[in-house]
Amino acid sequence: MTRSELIHQIFAKQSFLCVGLDPVMEKIPAHLLEFEDPIFEFNKRIIDATSEYAVAYKPNTAFYEALGVNGWKSLEKTINYIPKDCFIIADAKRGDIGNTSKAYAKTFFETLPCDAVTVAPYMGKDSVQPFLTFDGKWAIVLGLTSNEGATDFQYVTNQEEQPLYAKVISTVMEWGSPENLMFVVGATRTEQLADIRRIAPEHFLLVPGVGAQGGSLEDVFKAGANSDCGLLVNASRSIIYAGKGTDFEVATKKEALNIQSEMALYLQRLTR
Amino acid sequence: MTRSELIHQIFAKQSFLCVGLDPVMEKIPAHLLEFEDPIFEFNKRIIDATSEYAVAYKPNTAFYEALGVNGWKSLEKTINYIPKDCFIIADAKRGDIGNTSKAYAKTFFETLPCDAVTVAPYMGKDSVQPFLTFDGKWAIVLGLTSNEGATDFQYVTNQEEQPLYAKVISTVMEWGSPENLMFVVGATRTEQLADIRRIAPEHFLLVPGVGAQGGSLEDVFKAGANSDCGLLVNASRSIIYAGKGTDFEVATKKEALNIQSEMALYLQRLTR
Repeated sequence: MTRSELIHQIFAKQSFLCVGLDPVMEKIPAHLLEFEDPIFEFNKRIIDATSEYAVAYKPNTAFYEALGVNGWKSLEKTINYIPKDCFIIADAKRGDIGNTSKAYAKTFFETLPCDAVTVAPYMGKDSVQPFLTFDGKWAIVLGLTSNEGATDFQYVTNQEEQPLYAKVISTVMEWGSPENLMFVVGATRTEQLADIRRIAPEHFLLVPGVGAQGGSLEDVFKAGANSDCGLLVNASRSIIYAGKGTDFEVATKKEALNIQSEMALYLQRLTR
Repeated sequence: MTRSELIHQIFAKQSFLCVGLDPVMEKIPAHLLEFEDPIFEFNKRIIDATSEYAVAYKPNTAFYEALGVNGWKSLEKTINYIPKDCFIIADAKRGDIGNTSKAYAKTFFETLPCDAVTVAPYMGKDSVQPFLTFDGKWAIVLGLTSNEGATDFQYVTNQEEQPLYAKVISTVMEWGSPENLMFVVGATRTEQLADIRRIAPEHFLLVPGVGAQGGSLEDVFKAGANSDCGLLVNASRSIIYAGKGTDFEVATKKEALNIQSEMALYLQRLTR
């Protein structure tokens, strides 16, 4: 999906919601366990309940890999089930030497029909570039993450008093463009989000950490939006586990609608 | 596998060779393409030809994932085929928020019987720790990688004039011990390898980049060995693609024996 198509979807749906598809067998409603592929059945119902309100879906590969070959089958079916007007992010946090990153890019862009992959920056340019060579496909590079451990290395300042996350973002920007490159910036760090928006005024930012991790949507929008919106805000657990029991989709749908309604209010503040 | 078991294997086999199992369909001998699972058949022959001379195997997950569900089947079969006296490294370069890293640790330590996983450090402590909580299992954290892009961020010096790779290694060392933690250090950077050996005198180092990438085995040993050897040196392409045609295993075996013979000479230099 191209940048202009993504922006079109955001304003058409009045939403910049990304739904994280991170299912674990212990948490999905009991009645689904009777199916041959409970993980896919769960995701299917989540997608059906939310696709009106979400512009993107983000399965995290860890939760599928943990189930081995069957998990990869569930992942494949899930990705193929996501409606074509939604942006699909493989949250895989891959990154390796050039030749190997190329194999990962093929995995998610050719073997699977994803629009984007999250990429870890530690190994530098040749580890990121292979993800930037596919038309209409995206690398979403880790900038400043939402977890506690983010402070261990991402905040280390260099001799120009620049924290590593800022160095990473300003360097990686030179390898791609706002048409094929986004950054991950945690919602729990709104002060730094504003700083990052100054470094990268045009790039989309993928923002996890609203909801279960405690970030505020309004603060994220104020600090991070640009005139194209420029944000994809992810919620996982607060949406997919909103309900329990056989009618869990009802609560999931309600939660997605709530978030979308709030997002619509903020989008109306933008002058386009 | 515990540290003492690994050291025992190294001195019994007089080898610290790790064979990288990174097969791509376009490069494996044509006669194997007739099998139902050519990737596994290739790996099986490589393992049979080299297990006398290698103490470790390192499949890189990228090359399996690129083939989708069938690739994960090949990976699973390959890992299960590796002899029990060999150390198995999933070269996956994973790393995510704590909850998610835990799912990756389960993938490689419970769903698959690997001994170790390579881990990217960018997301900090909670992204690494879940890999350190399994008895006899290891996290192998990226320190200084062998690729060109390593210079982009790993060499950035902080305000104490410490390069990021040194900061990463000295920080991560506090999260584990030489019994469950190793570091990746590229063979192409022997000067820094000596520096890293000073920072981490006891930890095993996994060293890629000998062979196809151009690092010298003798230089690596001089700069990186400790009294327990403390090294696993990986070779992938120079071994697995040593031969072509139906008898490719012969050249693979010869190449593995060559490397092992050289390693035996160096191991004799150690006083134990």
